[in-house]
Amino acid sequence: LEKLHWDTALSYTTEDGIYIRGYDLNELVGSVPFPSVLYLLYTGTLPQPYQARLIEAVMVASIDHGAGTPSVLAARTAASGGAGLGPAAAAGLLTLGKYHGAAVQGAMEAIYRVADLAAPGTSQLADAAAQVVKEWRNAGKRISGFGHRQHKDRDPRLDRLMAIAREEGVHGQYLNAANELESALHRTLNRPLPINIDGGMAAILLEIDFPIGLSNALFMVSRMTGILAHAYEEIDQMTPMRRIDPLDHGYCGPEPRSIHKHDEGMDHD
Amino acid sequence: LEKLHWDTALSYTTEDGIYIRGYDLNELVGSVPFPSVLYLLYTGTLPQPYQARLIEAVMVASIDHGAGTPSVLAARTAASGGAGLGPAAAAGLLTLGKYHGAAVQGAMEAIYRVADLAAPGTSQLADAAAQVVKEWRNAGKRISGFGHRQHKDRDPRLDRLMAIAREEGVHGQYLNAANELESALHRTLNRPLPINIDGGMAAILLEIDFPIGLSNALFMVSRMTGILAHAYEEIDQMTPMRRIDPLDHGYCGPEPRSIHKHDEGMDHD
Amino acid sequence: LEKLHWDTALSYTTEDGIYIRGYDLNELVGSVPFPSVLYLLYTGTLPQPYQARLIEAVMVASIDHGAGTPSVLAARTAASGGAGLGPAAAAGLLTLGKYHGAAVQGAMEAIYRVADLAAPGTSQLADAAAQVVKEWRNAGKRISGFGHRQHKDRDPRLDRLMAIAREEGVHGQYLNAANELESALHRTLNRPLPINIDGGMAAILLEIDFPIGLSNALFMVSRMTGILAHAYEEIDQMTPMRRIDPLDHGYCGPEPRSIHKHDEGMDHD
Amino acid sequence: LEKLHWDTALSYTTEDGIYIRGYDLNELVGSVPFPSVLYLLYTGTLPQPYQARLIEAVMVASIDHGAGTPSVLAARTAASGGAGLGPAAAAGLLTLGKYHGAAVQGAMEAIYRVADLAAPGTSQLADAAAQVVKEWRNAGKRISGFGHRQHKDRDPRLDRLMAIAREEGVHGQYLNAANELESALHRTLNRPLPINIDGGMAAILLEIDFPIGLSNALFMVSRMTGILAHAYEEIDQMTPMRRIDPLDHGYCGPEPRSIHKHDEGMDHD
Repeated sequence: LEKLHWDTALSYTTEDGIYIRGYDLNELVGSVPFPSVLYLLYTGTLPQPYQARLIEAVMVASIDHGAGTPSVLAARTAASGGAGLGPAAAAGLLTLGKYHGAAVQGAMEAIYRVADLAAPGTSQLADAAAQVVKEWRNAGKRISGFGHRQHKDRDPRLDRLMAIAREEGVHGQYLNAANELESALHRTLNRPLPINIDGGMAAILLEIDFPIGLSNALFMVSRMTGILAHAYEEIDQMTPMRRIDPLDHGYCGPEPRSIHKHDEGMDHD
Repeated sequence: LEKLHWDTALSYTTEDGIYIRGYDLNELVGSVPFPSVLYLLYTGTLPQPYQARLIEAVMVASIDHGAGTPSVLAARTAASGGAGLGPAAAAGLLTLGKYHGAAVQGAMEAIYRVADLAAPGTSQLADAAAQVVKEWRNAGKRISGFGHRQHKDRDPRLDRLMAIAREEGVHGQYLNAANELESALHRTLNRPLPINIDGGMAAILLEIDFPIGLSNALFMVSRMTGILAHAYEEIDQMTPMRRIDPLDHGYCGPEPRSIHKHDEGMDHD
Repeated sequence: LEKLHWDTALSYTTEDGIYIRGYDLNELVGSVPFPSVLYLLYTGTLPQPYQARLIEAVMVASIDHGAGTPSVLAARTAASGGAGLGPAAAAGLLTLGKYHGAAVQGAMEAIYRVADLAAPGTSQLADAAAQVVKEWRNAGKRISGFGHRQHKDRDPRLDRLMAIAREEGVHGQYLNAANELESALHRTLNRPLPINIDGGMAAILLEIDFPIGLSNALFMVSRMTGILAHAYEEIDQMTPMRRIDPLDHGYCGPEPRSIHKHDEGMDHD
Repeated sequence: LEKLHWDTALSYTTEDGIYIRGYDLNELVGSVPFPSVLYLLYTGTLPQPYQARLIEAVMVASIDHGAGTPSVLAARTAASGGAGLGPAAAAGLLTLGKYHGAAVQGAMEAIYRVADLAAPGTSQLADAAAQVVKEWRNAGKRISGFGHRQHKDRDPRLDRLMAIAREEGVHGQYLNAANELESALHRTLNRPLPINIDGGMAAILLEIDFPIGLSNALFMVSRMTGILAHAYEEIDQMTPMRRIDPLDHGYCGPEPRSIHKHDEGMDHD
């Protein structure tokens, strides 16, 4: 028989424990936030505090987008046919395809290319952005991360993420490159195509040294949380084999409330 | 056409934002930890601080278990055939079945039954545990959460989780019920079958009022993080169509290290 | 390293060929119908001619059920999010759960139990059917294969399958047991609950010695054909991210036509 | 609410029946072979007899390839973790990616391009083949369908399929184009890269007017048959959570046998 030995750089187990990128998992448990351990697994390094706060913010911002997204509808449809929780969630995960959830990675590629073309510390970002717009158009591709179909004007999550980035002192080349891309697109298309939540997340993930190829993974982990909540509600509360209308649905949960009211159990800030 | 209106209690979107169980997602972003937002989605309530710390600890403890688990092997095998990141992870997710990952839920059911049978505040837990062992045996089921195939003696994660529970002042009926189950199993089987990591997580999740039906969802979100890391490494680093040995694999990542050393970037405690 | 050798009874490959249950696949190609090779793989034996005709009839009868089934809607939804053909079809496959597609297996279990309880060649089937109705009701289960939500009166496929069974001289204990179950259900519920297409397929599959545990597999192979056609149409023809209405859809394909008209290319009978 | 009406060209149901591309499914049941109904669903037309025989031959030739393929290993691994039959098969289906099962479609694209470049009825195929080899190399792609990793010399299924094509009088431009591609590859690479089973199937599928975009669908339906057989054997016969060696496995099924021996039940030819 052929020899098949292979190695992973991610993790291993012993009789005594589980080791993640060299750290004993037990040291991480109770000490390091979950999104920071994700960052460790995906990059090989524990995040700096500003990176830890931003990765957590991006994960929270991606956790759910209501009951009408294709991934939730697919998961609910599978559950409605009798799929268990995991298989229903898998149907939802498979729906996170190139049109649904992959925009952050596309935007990271374009923003990274702009920053990469411009010599660091120079004012060449505008020229680089114009060139990238041209390159993408010549290849017949649109630059994702700019414009949004539902939140017409400006996704409110974008302002929040940018405010957190400022609080953490993050204002580097990738955020600048994203702004230059927005301007270059405006000039080329002769109409504004403002940066959207995907473009904003893309710039922030680049600022915190998150690998482009794993941005979809980050999104999938986060959004699986919401998909699983919807799949479980479908299994637990809804009639099997019902026809699931993708538009005609409402909300019957708790009233609007705020974490800043003192009647909430957790003191968050 | 039939009317198909339906309602969800989880979340909704407006032109202005996304609302999770009544909270504006923007308020949560940057303020509330990711595992606490998961807790909110799954229970309808933001966790108390002790609940927030324990849910995060359980999620970190579940994030990965090395390259030899069935879910990782299935994800790597799919990636090796040419599946993209999401489909490969879906193959891994589908592998988290009744023998792999579902033990926490099984243990929660047994522990909950013990606590439910005993009148609160009484010393009837031992009798209840004996009865539950009998009920499960009569139904031809084993009680999951006790014993472990790899970590023969005592899974080190268990001690860590229990220490955190003590730090947070958690020592309620479910932890007691789990101990009584361990004793009842020992008496019945005439050999020790010590509580394992699944049983420990089960007791802790019950202590923090986490719904039994969603414990697998919690595990899936956490473990998807690891599965996606392995799927990406397979796609990015490995030869397509290789034969993946389930045992003959090693580790080529960073050397053993500690978060307590001062050369690490993050000051965690 | 542990020894892991294992054996399969299904198939193997050599430098010279592929062997299915002992037959050189090359001998089967061009000589044996596809459904008969499926039968060989699933039972270990090539079918007799009457078994071959009936397995093929059941597979054709299951190939598609229009655009409004949950499995097709899930596959189209996944495709609409950007999933490729295989992942979209996988989302559809996962939707074939206990409420959608599994009724044949449930019916086989009940019919088999009736035939098994009655001594062969006796007139005890009626008593056995009454007992099985009682057993299922005591266990809180409904007997699947009787009644249908869409085809109110009688699914026309049922008459066709039964006619083919008669043509092939099949009128054994399982068809009789199914009829007795129908009568017993009528008496117990005091209203007719006529055998439906799932119940009819169940009886026929038992008559041709098809294993109960693989009836869902047979259905999945057949229905995957339709699911893949729908997924491909969605990918090839439809707008990405469209909202897919589960009821408000029509048909824009070829006009009604018949295989018996002479303008068709194939001379089938 | 937005209007969402949409149309499919594939099929529809009425109170009376199911219609596939305009044909009453009941007419097809018992009269038309399963692979011919697949052809109808995928192309809109019932096949001519030669097309019907060749589509069936291709489907039988693809039904299984032993226990060591990535798709079977993934399905068995998922089953081993506790996945049910459908979810385990879905894990296998997801493994049929670009390196595993997609070669036929790639070969069809190249062969079609050769035939398309050459004026019909001329002897320009050799030039066209040389050009296509150059185009593919310039684009950094290899032409699939030529060479095979396991069956070093010549896959025996290829000869069988070609013999059936000859029996059916099929010897058109696509088979010629495939031969010319083989010659052009030999000249360019200076070593023989003989057409393999994928290339042969590709040429045959083009000869019978099968749509390129649905060749993977054809393969998936066929191979799902084998994947489901393996998943069921794993669920039914094997120990849960076993480590599945991808190489060290054997065969414990029926002895070698032939359909031409008179002890077999079915008279096939």
